[in-house]
Amino acid sequence: MKLTEDHLASFSTNNFHSRSLDLLRDRFSDQQIDFDHFIRKVQAFQIAIPSAALGNGKASTKMHRTGGEPRNLNEKLEDIGLLQQLTRKTNSISVYIPWDMPEDYRETKDLAAELNLEFDTMNSTSSQDQNQQKYAKLGSLGNPDKEIREEAIAHNEEVISIGKKLGSKGLTVWMADGSNFPGQSNFRNTLGWTEESLREIYEFMPSDWKLMLEYKPYEPNCYHTVVPDWGTSSMLAKRLGSRAKVLVDLGYHLPKTNIEQIVATLMYQNLLAGFHFNDSKYGEDDMNPSSIKPYQLFLIFNELIEGDQSGAQTWESISWMIDASYNTQDPLVDLIQALEAITIAYAKALLVDRKKLHECQQNGESSQAQEILQMAYLTDVRPLVCEARIRAGGVAEPLEAYRILMIRNKLVQERGAKSHSYLF
Amino acid sequence: MKLTEDHLASFSTNNFHSRSLDLLRDRFSDQQIDFDHFIRKVQAFQIAIPSAALGNGKASTKMHRTGGEPRNLNEKLEDIGLLQQLTRKTNSISVYIPWDMPEDYRETKDLAAELNLEFDTMNSTSSQDQNQQKYAKLGSLGNPDKEIREEAIAHNEEVISIGKKLGSKGLTVWMADGSNFPGQSNFRNTLGWTEESLREIYEFMPSDWKLMLEYKPYEPNCYHTVVPDWGTSSMLAKRLGSRAKVLVDLGYHLPKTNIEQIVATLMYQNLLAGFHFNDSKYGEDDMNPSSIKPYQLFLIFNELIEGDQSGAQTWESISWMIDASYNTQDPLVDLIQALEAITIAYAKALLVDRKKLHECQQNGESSQAQEILQMAYLTDVRPLVCEARIRAGGVAEPLEAYRILMIRNKLVQERGAKSHSYLF
Amino acid sequence: MKLTEDHLASFSTNNFHSRSLDLLRDRFSDQQIDFDHFIRKVQAFQIAIPSAALGNGKASTKMHRTGGEPRNLNEKLEDIGLLQQLTRKTNSISVYIPWDMPEDYRETKDLAAELNLEFDTMNSTSSQDQNQQKYAKLGSLGNPDKEIREEAIAHNEEVISIGKKLGSKGLTVWMADGSNFPGQSNFRNTLGWTEESLREIYEFMPSDWKLMLEYKPYEPNCYHTVVPDWGTSSMLAKRLGSRAKVLVDLGYHLPKTNIEQIVATLMYQNLLAGFHFNDSKYGEDDMNPSSIKPYQLFLIFNELIEGDQSGAQTWESISWMIDASYNTQDPLVDLIQALEAITIAYAKALLVDRKKLHECQQNGESSQAQEILQMAYLTDVRPLVCEARIRAGGVAEPLEAYRILMIRNKLVQERGAKSHSYLF
Amino acid sequence: MKLTEDHLASFSTNNFHSRSLDLLRDRFSDQQIDFDHFIRKVQAFQIAIPSAALGNGKASTKMHRTGGEPRNLNEKLEDIGLLQQLTRKTNSISVYIPWDMPEDYRETKDLAAELNLEFDTMNSTSSQDQNQQKYAKLGSLGNPDKEIREEAIAHNEEVISIGKKLGSKGLTVWMADGSNFPGQSNFRNTLGWTEESLREIYEFMPSDWKLMLEYKPYEPNCYHTVVPDWGTSSMLAKRLGSRAKVLVDLGYHLPKTNIEQIVATLMYQNLLAGFHFNDSKYGEDDMNPSSIKPYQLFLIFNELIEGDQSGAQTWESISWMIDASYNTQDPLVDLIQALEAITIAYAKALLVDRKKLHECQQNGESSQAQEILQMAYLTDVRPLVCEARIRAGGVAEPLEAYRILMIRNKLVQERGAKSHSYLF
Repeated sequence: MKLTEDHLASFSTNNFHSRSLDLLRDRFSDQQIDFDHFIRKVQAFQIAIPSAALGNGKASTKMHRTGGEPRNLNEKLEDIGLLQQLTRKTNSISVYIPWDMPEDYRETKDLAAELNLEFDTMNSTSSQDQNQQKYAKLGSLGNPDKEIREEAIAHNEEVISIGKKLGSKGLTVWMADGSNFPGQSNFRNTLGWTEESLREIYEFMPSDWKLMLEYKPYEPNCYHTVVPDWGTSSMLAKRLGSRAKVLVDLGYHLPKTNIEQIVATLMYQNLLAGFHFNDSKYGEDDMNPSSIKPYQLFLIFNELIEGDQSGAQTWESISWMIDASYNTQDPLVDLIQALEAITIAYAKALLVDRKKLHECQQNGESSQAQEILQMAYLTDVRPLVCEARIRAGGVAEPLEAYRILMIRNKLVQERGAKSHSYLF
Repeated sequence: MKLTEDHLASFSTNNFHSRSLDLLRDRFSDQQIDFDHFIRKVQAFQIAIPSAALGNGKASTKMHRTGGEPRNLNEKLEDIGLLQQLTRKTNSISVYIPWDMPEDYRETKDLAAELNLEFDTMNSTSSQDQNQQKYAKLGSLGNPDKEIREEAIAHNEEVISIGKKLGSKGLTVWMADGSNFPGQSNFRNTLGWTEESLREIYEFMPSDWKLMLEYKPYEPNCYHTVVPDWGTSSMLAKRLGSRAKVLVDLGYHLPKTNIEQIVATLMYQNLLAGFHFNDSKYGEDDMNPSSIKPYQLFLIFNELIEGDQSGAQTWESISWMIDASYNTQDPLVDLIQALEAITIAYAKALLVDRKKLHECQQNGESSQAQEILQMAYLTDVRPLVCEARIRAGGVAEPLEAYRILMIRNKLVQERGAKSHSYLF
Repeated sequence: MKLTEDHLASFSTNNFHSRSLDLLRDRFSDQQIDFDHFIRKVQAFQIAIPSAALGNGKASTKMHRTGGEPRNLNEKLEDIGLLQQLTRKTNSISVYIPWDMPEDYRETKDLAAELNLEFDTMNSTSSQDQNQQKYAKLGSLGNPDKEIREEAIAHNEEVISIGKKLGSKGLTVWMADGSNFPGQSNFRNTLGWTEESLREIYEFMPSDWKLMLEYKPYEPNCYHTVVPDWGTSSMLAKRLGSRAKVLVDLGYHLPKTNIEQIVATLMYQNLLAGFHFNDSKYGEDDMNPSSIKPYQLFLIFNELIEGDQSGAQTWESISWMIDASYNTQDPLVDLIQALEAITIAYAKALLVDRKKLHECQQNGESSQAQEILQMAYLTDVRPLVCEARIRAGGVAEPLEAYRILMIRNKLVQERGAKSHSYLF
Repeated sequence: MKLTEDHLASFSTNNFHSRSLDLLRDRFSDQQIDFDHFIRKVQAFQIAIPSAALGNGKASTKMHRTGGEPRNLNEKLEDIGLLQQLTRKTNSISVYIPWDMPEDYRETKDLAAELNLEFDTMNSTSSQDQNQQKYAKLGSLGNPDKEIREEAIAHNEEVISIGKKLGSKGLTVWMADGSNFPGQSNFRNTLGWTEESLREIYEFMPSDWKLMLEYKPYEPNCYHTVVPDWGTSSMLAKRLGSRAKVLVDLGYHLPKTNIEQIVATLMYQNLLAGFHFNDSKYGEDDMNPSSIKPYQLFLIFNELIEGDQSGAQTWESISWMIDASYNTQDPLVDLIQALEAITIAYAKALLVDRKKLHECQQNGESSQAQEILQMAYLTDVRPLVCEARIRAGGVAEPLEAYRILMIRNKLVQERGAKSHSYLF
């Protein structure tokens, strides 16, 4: 399914839009913000959609089938194409192998080209082998059994080969490796095997690729994860070489972690690979971005802009992806919300009066810093985000359009009420 | 499979046992502990096994089939019978309905009688309906839809009816009810419906039954659980009546919770229903008891004994059950470890010089309190626990016997290498 | 120091104000919000200032003297008078005894009347005796030593007597009671003594007073606090009687606690006494409201409005107070920020389309619930809050006025650069 | 005060000692543990006492004066001398400057030599300047103000100079630097300044010294600490050079951190500087070691022994210090308990059957790993620790001896009931 120009043209901005926009332009005029430049920045910011997020989530007791879910990689590309037509915020897919194995490369690449979509970072699934037995106890790349490690390395190399054919430029490695009880695993041996395995993958990788190392403190393991924190991840990245960097998944941190500081510390070392956007209240909840801690996301973007503008690490070197899980709701609706929420956080952070902030940081003036941040955060930037979207060819209100066009209904008709690609 | 007297008789204590025992008796002689009384107390302490824990755990990526797992309720009774023959620590089963529905009551009850096993508290599974759809979004007893609530009430009433036939005297209700995002659920309405539903179940329950209300802060819900903490659970229990009490599952607490204090506070109000024993490092890990925080378990038993001896709430009014999950290991091995670990914590707490402790509590002498607790905790009570087991007819070293008798092998031969009862 | 009409009149709204206001009015017209009614609600909402927050905070290594800090209760009233003239958000003081003992009741009451200030809830300081010795080990109202308990009761009764003379209608009791190490304190005895002591205080209290029981999980005690959570606090409140209720201090919760749910659960039982507003990232940080989790504060107000409108507990029965600590910044600046942040959260929650929210709660539609909440939360309500303030006689931009009027400089001239009332 | 040979000789082992010891020797005979070698290892393990821990703690509301507290560095040496005579577990002092500035180097060094005490790592107090103003807002080594940074560097260089005169071989740097609110501090600039300052200190340090970099997630700062975790600390250490390493303070971690894994990961990189031993339940509680999580301490020693024996990092390269805080109890009593608790954890970890553990780690056998660890952990090693102490010239039961000899009374007579060195 693809929307026609007529479909899109039928949605114009409401009558408040230009008034809101003018007001914002006037209010920020003294901050000497070039509005067109600002809107181009917001436009340019594009977020990848993971192939795993387009259907309803994990095979848990809380799962619910929305209907019309894509049945294969090509249908997933089509869904992202729809998202892109409406929002103009996502120009790429991040493919999980073997879950979303291309059946016909030619066809898949042609479809992507037709939809103006690119292939973002590839994802191996070292967390799981297919018969769910070999990796179950002691993992993949760090497994004490050399044969299993080699199998896991080969899997990652295969993912790179597939990615090369698709035109991807990076590989994300998340290992579920770890142990359930004290004593079960030898911490240092496991780390050593993991480093060796990653080195083989790193060396297999084309020279213009980026290796993104994810970390996660716990789950599915109860006691220890081989790469639990940014410290371990960055130690491995530095040992591998300059194309290896650290991926930050917002939900994968211990309680109370200051994530915006981690972002700054990684940029201090030019070590930030990119993000998996989501939110969480308790554990690794895979909730939609900004559904719990929108201010945290704003502070993270504040650091990203600061790091870019100060020359610590370029904006272009960073990858952006949503990584939330949709169990009981329509994934396309929530992805539209996610794209909007992330863009809003970014746009608000762009409004921070950075010059004034630097001045008060020099003196540690907390009240003034708070005032400067709030001035940006409390601003309703939706008209700006909307304007950027319209100028890029999207619709004013994507959610509204999605409903009026009855997209889900049409997908159900096309694909069936119980369609899905795989359960995991 | 059942062990013969010959099997059991072949395991005698090792030569250190009597020396260890004599030494302990002499060392504690000045504390005026009646050793035979002590050992009878340890013997009398019996812990129920849940019917859900006898096979390998949840259908997750980390699961692994041990082989020889019981295929139905009767085989589960047989497994508990084996545990009891070896350990003399578990004289009952706690049945989950509909997972472990009796096929033939007569046969099941006869088998239990033959194995000297009783039917502990029944467990409804309000967390899940069978087709995994109706409860998925907004739960069971607190669902906004009256029809679903009535279905959930009827399920619990059916569990009571089954339990009556089996000879059980209690019902444990754990509700997975809750919501995934802010705004999705109306906190107070949901609580109100839950209270109403529980009242119907409470009133349906025979007058000599106990209703045990479990609480859990999160999971499977990401944002809110209807009964998240002991406060909510005890509010509901008090509104229902004196047969309703609060069940403490060790793993279901927010980070850093002082669980031993909750136990004391519940006993202060005569509101403690019982325990689900397990341990956790991060979230609700369902790890084996004492595998992470053995000192916490000791402090909990210290409160239980204190509460019993001071007359706050009787020991006999409290139910004891293991609730751990075994994914990659032999469940019978881990259950033997669990029974031993719980008994060790209890035995150590029995050694606390309570008179001296009361004296130093009067003056808040922390160093002395620490000394008194450590004096008990550091004592190696395994010879005492072993002696209690032998006197009751068990074997000296259950794990060793389990291995030498090659019980798992025999179960695999009997039941097959991939046998299981259900996946959940 | 008091501002003249001329002072205040010199600050008019900026030229964006009326445009912003008109736009908001138009945008929310379809939600059928009566704007004048809305603004009157915002106006009516008044937050008490604690007498302890008007100077720089605790005598720690991070403390810093702002200068011009009030030296006694009357000067504190004057400071709140200034805040009220600028913001119209705070019409009362919450006095800590013995820290802010009135010297001359007549004079103090006359001053308050002149400034249109009332005396909110009184605060005893059971956390600390004056020579810092007696309560140090085992607390006040729950101390094992009867003599110390009686002293602590007498202190609270004295505070009530003082409050009666001032015209207060409530007492807040926060007990630092607890212990530093396992075994040091007897949980249940301590709870029993605490209950007895509170009963004496409750009975001493005039019949039109409210007893507000605060809870806190830890600190200054390292191991156990006698009243650590809302469950314990509400248990005590219910045993005392209907004039005892539970006070929620936002910073006093274990990691990841769902505070908005606690608020709803307390209102479910008509047990919510009121709030101490602040924010925290790690422990009990006493940071300014909304400086870390502004969305949480919005969700709390969402529950408060829901509870009020549904008839669970009336808005008027709830007390509101700031309880943040200002160590290195000007307390008046931060209090203005705090008043603004709290009002913004309230105003946003008032904009929630409650009818639509109820509809989607009936079906558990999380995406729609998210949309409804975000629609309100993302709205920039500052023009509404500003309009309410202006209509009530305050200035458009209180912080700006505070700076232009050079109020701090004048206070330093009046009171000196190192003035303070007490260190705690 | 110093104990005579007669004093010490009067305490012999109780009659259970040799029986207990024989039993242990027999029980572990099959594990082929050389008992004399084992006991020599326990003897050789020595833990430094910080000069700040010999009096009652911080000037908080919970503080209490024990009486007879040392008034200066020499009296602190005397107190450690007493501890060493009784326990034979502490042969050194770790001095805080300027708090414990030597008055007469000759005299202090002679006293130390006479007491057989050495000077362990020096501690600067970058957390606090003396007039409590300059560092208050934005810290010391990372302060935006170059002049303040230079002052802080000079302070550390002075501490090194003092340490050289005393014969110390290391410097511990703990920075309280950080900020209280978002925006107040520039994360990366602060980190850069900190790195520069540390480089100056590192280069000033003699070539045979070790620089120990401590980390801490929060407090006294509410929002951000410049060096919050082992990742940041090790990044700085690696940038400085091989003499810089990471110090682990057990209490300074976010909730649920797997500290034993951090220890292993640091040893993997030969980056572990040493330990500050303490325990905590909630925040940074500075409780006595093993008072809350004794099993965690055992698991940490298990990793230390594993890392040493596998050649990752030598035991001798690691520093050991107690860092607990004694507010309401006798510091000498608690230090005796602390030394005993740490030694017990070490002795238990030495009993782990490492060969068997390696075997089951190869197969990820969690139940067996649990069994092997419990076999060691549940053993009552107090007779072994006692034997090691006696053979080294200490007394069998140091706490008992401390009380019978009425050491505290004598210290009070000598130094007065309110003596102390400084409040901090």
